[in-house]
Amino acid sequence: KLIDLMEPLHAADIADLLEQVNAFDRRRLVELYGRELDGEILSEVDDGIREEVIALMRPEVLAEAVRDLESDDVVDLIEDLEDDAKEAILASLEDADRVVVEQSLSYPEFSAGRLMQREVVMGPEHWNVGEAIDFMRETEGLPEDFYHMVITNPLMHPIGHVTLGKILGAPRSQLLRDILEPGFRTFRVDESESDVAYAFNQYHMISAPVVDDDGRVIGVITIDDAMNVLDEEHEEDIMRLAGVGDGTLSDRVSETVKQRLPWLAVNLMTAIMASLVIAQFEATITALVALAVLMPIVASMGGNAGTQALTVAVRAIATRDLTGANVWRVIRREVLVGLVNGLIFAVIMGAVGMIWFGSPALGLVISTAMVINLVVAGLAGIGVPVVLERIGVDPALASGAFVTTVTDIVGFFAFLGLAATFLL
Amino acid sequence: KLIDLMEPLHAADIADLLEQVNAFDRRRLVELYGRELDGEILSEVDDGIREEVIALMRPEVLAEAVRDLESDDVVDLIEDLEDDAKEAILASLEDADRVVVEQSLSYPEFSAGRLMQREVVMGPEHWNVGEAIDFMRETEGLPEDFYHMVITNPLMHPIGHVTLGKILGAPRSQLLRDILEPGFRTFRVDESESDVAYAFNQYHMISAPVVDDDGRVIGVITIDDAMNVLDEEHEEDIMRLAGVGDGTLSDRVSETVKQRLPWLAVNLMTAIMASLVIAQFEATITALVALAVLMPIVASMGGNAGTQALTVAVRAIATRDLTGANVWRVIRREVLVGLVNGLIFAVIMGAVGMIWFGSPALGLVISTAMVINLVVAGLAGIGVPVVLERIGVDPALASGAFVTTVTDIVGFFAFLGLAATFLL
Ligand SMILES: [Mg+2]
Ligand SMILES: [Mg+2]
Ligand SMILES: [Mg+2]
Ligand SMILES: [Mg+2]
Ligand SMILES: [Mg+2]
Ligand SMILES: [Mg+2]
Ligand SMILES: [Mg+2]
Ligand SMILES: [Mg+2]
Ligand SMILES: [Mg+2]
Ligand SMILES: [Mg+2]
Ligand SMILES: [Mg+2]
Ligand SMILES: [Mg+2]
Ligand SMILES: [Mg+2]
Repeated sequence: KLIDLMEPLHAADIADLLEQVNAFDRRRLVELYGRELDGEILSEVDDGIREEVIALMRPEVLAEAVRDLESDDVVDLIEDLEDDAKEAILASLEDADRVVVEQSLSYPEFSAGRLMQREVVMGPEHWNVGEAIDFMRETEGLPEDFYHMVITNPLMHPIGHVTLGKILGAPRSQLLRDILEPGFRTFRVDESESDVAYAFNQYHMISAPVVDDDGRVIGVITIDDAMNVLDEEHEEDIMRLAGVGDGTLSDRVSETVKQRLPWLAVNLMTAIMASLVIAQFEATITALVALAVLMPIVASMGGNAGTQALTVAVRAIATRDLTGANVWRVIRREVLVGLVNGLIFAVIMGAVGMIWFGSPALGLVISTAMVINLVVAGLAGIGVPVVLERIGVDPALASGAFVTTVTDIVGFFAFLGLAATFLL
Repeated sequence: KLIDLMEPLHAADIADLLEQVNAFDRRRLVELYGRELDGEILSEVDDGIREEVIALMRPEVLAEAVRDLESDDVVDLIEDLEDDAKEAILASLEDADRVVVEQSLSYPEFSAGRLMQREVVMGPEHWNVGEAIDFMRETEGLPEDFYHMVITNPLMHPIGHVTLGKILGAPRSQLLRDILEPGFRTFRVDESESDVAYAFNQYHMISAPVVDDDGRVIGVITIDDAMNVLDEEHEEDIMRLAGVGDGTLSDRVSETVKQRLPWLAVNLMTAIMASLVIAQFEATITALVALAVLMPIVASMGGNAGTQALTVAVRAIATRDLTGANVWRVIRREVLVGLVNGLIFAVIMGAVGMIWFGSPALGLVISTAMVINLVVAGLAGIGVPVVLERIGVDPALASGAFVTTVTDIVGFFAFLGLAATFLL
């Protein structure tokens, strides 16, 4: 009955179902669903619960499940598993497949070598369309999904590729080398997956061969896997900007606490630093308690403006739109935007301060502090991520804490310092 | 010389170059590059400067540039242009192309109809592989990129599709209807582009036909365009979370100010609300100025914890991983995480408060306020986006302001209220 219900579901939907129920129901689902749990479901399921699901499967079912997957999917499935689980799956593969997978695993993590599938459809440069079609007809077990035939010279170096559409549209006598796609490019096996994802997205690529150090074709990367990388990088950026480690919805309370605690601890330290600034002005605040009421406004506006500039910068660095060519113009812009917004809110807050507390001098102090903090926010918002990127730290990871520390400290110091100087 | 330099660049790189230089250099580049500026560059260039570039092009160059584009790229190019520029481009198309583009533009914005290309490769269900190949060989002007042949019944309803790889690998006598892809699906022309992008990503689709109200095939959507939508939605989420309107790096200062001002204004209002809470406790603060020093810590920790929960929720809603099936479990988890983190930081802050100000009572007050605010932060961080989503507001857009308002107000109120009750 359950199997009837789940039968029409796509593997990705079954994986989602397994992620969304609790651990108890998950165990029951896996046991009931038994031998129908195929490899595709395993490769769709989140890293967080994959080991749990694998541990629930009987070894022979697991072996059966993994055997139909393409090499790149097997690599993706096992690369983050503990050694036991990894060994179990490798042992269940046929010898030839195991060698291929182990070779892929020998390339560095997050490299093109990990992303590629080993099944490549290739033809020599002297072939015509008819020979290509005959070759494909005769070949058993063409890959599930392929979009180009890669054309190689006798050294197995790729000289280009032809779309299947072009092969189908051309007469049998058409030479393949005369209908190569423009803009062909390859990836080195050790190139980073993030460069691969960028190139696929930027140049609208569908598939591209991967070459080894000698320039020989050893695999091919397809758009679905490249887009997956892009999606993961986006998730990483948005999570890191918020100070959330890489967790999933199915993590337990204890795991989630562990992921979030470090950034809260960093925030606590920066908040205490800001408090130390305030503590320098205790006498001033005692003399004029309105300062305690108004000071969070200046800090909060700076934090927000800084986060705006910062997010734009982090995104632009991720999409590679912020480069040496425009970084100074963008910095100039952020400072000017901070200045203009600062002046606008200075007028508003000056008025609020005056009306609320009846003191033009207080209004002037908060206005000036607002302008200072919003200019600093703009500068820090763009400057911090750019500098972090230059020194090789992920700007998404650390910028937020830096920028709000700066805007808190500058906000409190400017406001309370000006007040101490001019109001008392 | 310039043209020699730019010649080997991909259209997307030339577009990036145009985005990264300033308006003056952009004008000179476009004028120098002149008639080489083809349609692909135009369609790669950011919406923000596209009108500027179009305005710089001579009409006959513009007409020439647009004529080679596929229908979906023309639609994407002109849909956001002012009427003049739109008319100019439509007028430059051949009659047949213009009709097709105008029809696509008649579908709602952000629908499958806007995303599809009209050029579909189709075959009737009784064809075999040989007939399909002969048809493609005889057809002039097959689409640039296509990955499936769509198989239709006599009513032009799609009954499935066959990959080009399968057609190439099968004997000429193989019936197409016996090698259809599993998991075939179509999109209605008015389906939202975000549903389309979700399905492509979730089910690893490469292309899928679009059908009209009568179920007839009228177009096809390919993965590159679906992934573009996914990328734009990413950008929208990350920008909206930070309170940044949809701008680009090439926007001027005045435009950027206009995009960011509204959210800073919202933040000002919420900051003033928090100040009003502080103002209720002026007497308490005057009596014990340490409160002014410590109160930003409680608010800041709450804001951070809330943003963590919120970001996880917004991302999970975007990926459709947060559903009715697990929402209560996730809410429970967030509250528990808030409680555990609250207790941990309560101990730390209690100690800091005691050592710094030598008052165990003050330490107890800040500890209690910390626990309260971190639990509230967890609840608000998940609750606000979930409720917004239910009532049809984009959770990425408005959650941030709501959540930090709640954590500021609760933080100040709990800390100062407890202090007023127990310390004075
Ligand atoms: Mg999933
Ligand atoms: Mg991986
Ligand atoms: Mg295209
Ligand atoms: Mg695949
Ligand atoms: Mg793959
Ligand atoms: Mg990154
Ligand atoms: Mg780009
Ligand atoms: Mg661009
Ligand atoms: Mg569009
Ligand atoms: Mg567009
Ligand atoms: Mg297209
Ligand atoms: Mg959205
Ligand atoms: Mg999913």
